[in-house]
Amino acid sequence: MHSLDLKKPDGRSLTLYSTRPISNAEGMSAPSPFQDPQGANPHLRWHPMRGEWVAYAAYRQNRTFQPPPEYNPLAPMKDPSNPTELPEGDYEVAVFDNRFPTLTGEAHDPPSLDVRTEPGNGKCEVVVFTQDPKAALAELPLARIELLLQVWADRTRRIASENPTIQYVLPFENRGAEVGVTLHHPHGQIYAYPFIPQVPARMLEQELQHYQQHGENLLVSMVRAEIATQERLLYEGEHAVAFVPPCARYPYEVWVTLKAPTPSFGALSDAARADLARALKTVLMKYEGLWQRPFPYLMAWYQAPTDGQEHPETQLHAVFWPPYRSKERLKYLAGTELAAGMFAMDVLPEATAAQLREVQVNVDA
Amino acid sequence: MHSLDLKKPDGRSLTLYSTRPISNAEGMSAPSPFQDPQGANPHLRWHPMRGEWVAYAAYRQNRTFQPPPEYNPLAPMKDPSNPTELPEGDYEVAVFDNRFPTLTGEAHDPPSLDVRTEPGNGKCEVVVFTQDPKAALAELPLARIELLLQVWADRTRRIASENPTIQYVLPFENRGAEVGVTLHHPHGQIYAYPFIPQVPARMLEQELQHYQQHGENLLVSMVRAEIATQERLLYEGEHAVAFVPPCARYPYEVWVTLKAPTPSFGALSDAARADLARALKTVLMKYEGLWQRPFPYLMAWYQAPTDGQEHPETQLHAVFWPPYRSKERLKYLAGTELAAGMFAMDVLPEATAAQLREVQVNVDA
Repeated sequence: MHSLDLKKPDGRSLTLYSTRPISNAEGMSAPSPFQDPQGANPHLRWHPMRGEWVAYAAYRQNRTFQPPPEYNPLAPMKDPSNPTELPEGDYEVAVFDNRFPTLTGEAHDPPSLDVRTEPGNGKCEVVVFTQDPKAALAELPLARIELLLQVWADRTRRIASENPTIQYVLPFENRGAEVGVTLHHPHGQIYAYPFIPQVPARMLEQELQHYQQHGENLLVSMVRAEIATQERLLYEGEHAVAFVPPCARYPYEVWVTLKAPTPSFGALSDAARADLARALKTVLMKYEGLWQRPFPYLMAWYQAPTDGQEHPETQLHAVFWPPYRSKERLKYLAGTELAAGMFAMDVLPEATAAQLREVQVNVDA
Repeated sequence: MHSLDLKKPDGRSLTLYSTRPISNAEGMSAPSPFQDPQGANPHLRWHPMRGEWVAYAAYRQNRTFQPPPEYNPLAPMKDPSNPTELPEGDYEVAVFDNRFPTLTGEAHDPPSLDVRTEPGNGKCEVVVFTQDPKAALAELPLARIELLLQVWADRTRRIASENPTIQYVLPFENRGAEVGVTLHHPHGQIYAYPFIPQVPARMLEQELQHYQQHGENLLVSMVRAEIATQERLLYEGEHAVAFVPPCARYPYEVWVTLKAPTPSFGALSDAARADLARALKTVLMKYEGLWQRPFPYLMAWYQAPTDGQEHPETQLHAVFWPPYRSKERLKYLAGTELAAGMFAMDVLPEATAAQLREVQVNVDA
């Protein structure tokens, strides 16, 4: 993997990644649609009743930048009078600081309130998967998906080493208008938190308890059961698997992970990474094939916290949450899901697994 | 409060409630659009990674009943050849068993899987607020809202006494197409769980910790601070308050509660109930007035578990989560909210409180 670090005129960082040396690296500079310093200053407030942090970044709603509908800030810049976020060049993946971060290392002086407050310390990055605005992650070659897995490892390592207060790095992709996405150029985001957020914290508790009781990583145990059962399995390679979990909270929920204990992106061997890319692409292609149309989802990658501890109890894995409960109907989160935290499913995981198993895909490159 | 218990032909219960005696109670029978026995058999699966139960009620998606668009099952039945869920009569509020329950006391024989399973024990009720299909909770008289608070107390008591395995009773209302509602006749739901679900369980933990440290109910402390600050306060009566919490996770989030320790609906004095109805109606009218159009929301009521224990640490309160982040834009829950559990707000609670404070309402009856 090759990379090139650049700095935008407004002070934000840009890193270009490629499997080959980036040829025109010498004269390359980082553009920005924004010339003035960023000045983002989010803060956190403690929610005493829920025991969790909430982030406030009020300038996000007030941004005055109103681009024309055809303007794509993630496309390589062709015309300096109409700057985008990315330069022209033969890089493959690009990562830059979000101009409107929910969390940033520069946050300072939170307001004083009746609830505890903290600066909105952390980092929010945009990860551009390809220069092609019309592509989808499912259409990218395996080599690009492998590169992306390496990029996520590199970002995790760099974010944590540049800001030692970071405890958790979460890469995710929101895809499709149905989940609120307005910019359809293939891209994801990375959020880095100065604490372990509630969902992965709860997961780590469960994993640690299992590890202490059984001496094995919980998800590795679940994977073994899925392989034995086969019923919900969508992919099994030498290293990686994909399946609909028996406890799916969303119709068409899928998990992608490794068979062997692997706490984070940084722990992937070359062979495991290649197989994980194939598992991921298989799932993405099955999704696209299911209804023969672009398939929206939230894809999140859980990994070990960057808290300086060993985490043999936890396992790198992706979770896909699609918003549809059937071809024509969205699943809305309502009373029992949001207010109680008990998800109600009107379709069995075995039924959605059967549908996804039937979708034939050919992952050749 | 007067009530009348009836049984539907398919075995489901119906209770009619009124502030006055129900005049035609003698000859009244409970209709149902469904004549065959319900036969619902949901099950629960344990989610080992999240440490929570997920409910599966596969028959909910497969229901064959496809009513015409003008058909309103919550309207009083006028024509026996086109049965609805409710009879004609001078009752005010009606409660009946959901025909498609996510949880039911009749659940049995869950499937055997690699994750723990249990029958989908519990109860799902529909609560009809008025006979007028065009009304809204905000438009109902204070006396009706007081009655509704009494009904919620009565349902909590009855559900828990009829099924001693019930641990938590949660009344809520999903309102508006934006939150997935297709049936616009004013109504809410009650979910009763055989365990304390994750969100109230977490809340109880936080509340108990505060109570043990400070000898006071956490929300009562927060209310005192809100009254002192005034900034986010929307209503203050002798007994009840409504305010935008300083830690709001949704724009226009509002909490409605009591000043004095009150663990549940059953603990409300007549005076406190009357004032709570006024606080609730004030919030509802401010919502309707904000953009001069019907305002969608999820309203959930938290109260003490029905686990036979005293819960001085907890406080009855309503939480409103509206789906809009501004007049024209929905708030989508995406990566950081769903995958991490850290909510990101682009509007400050003080700003939405100021908007709601400005909406003048006249709650005279």
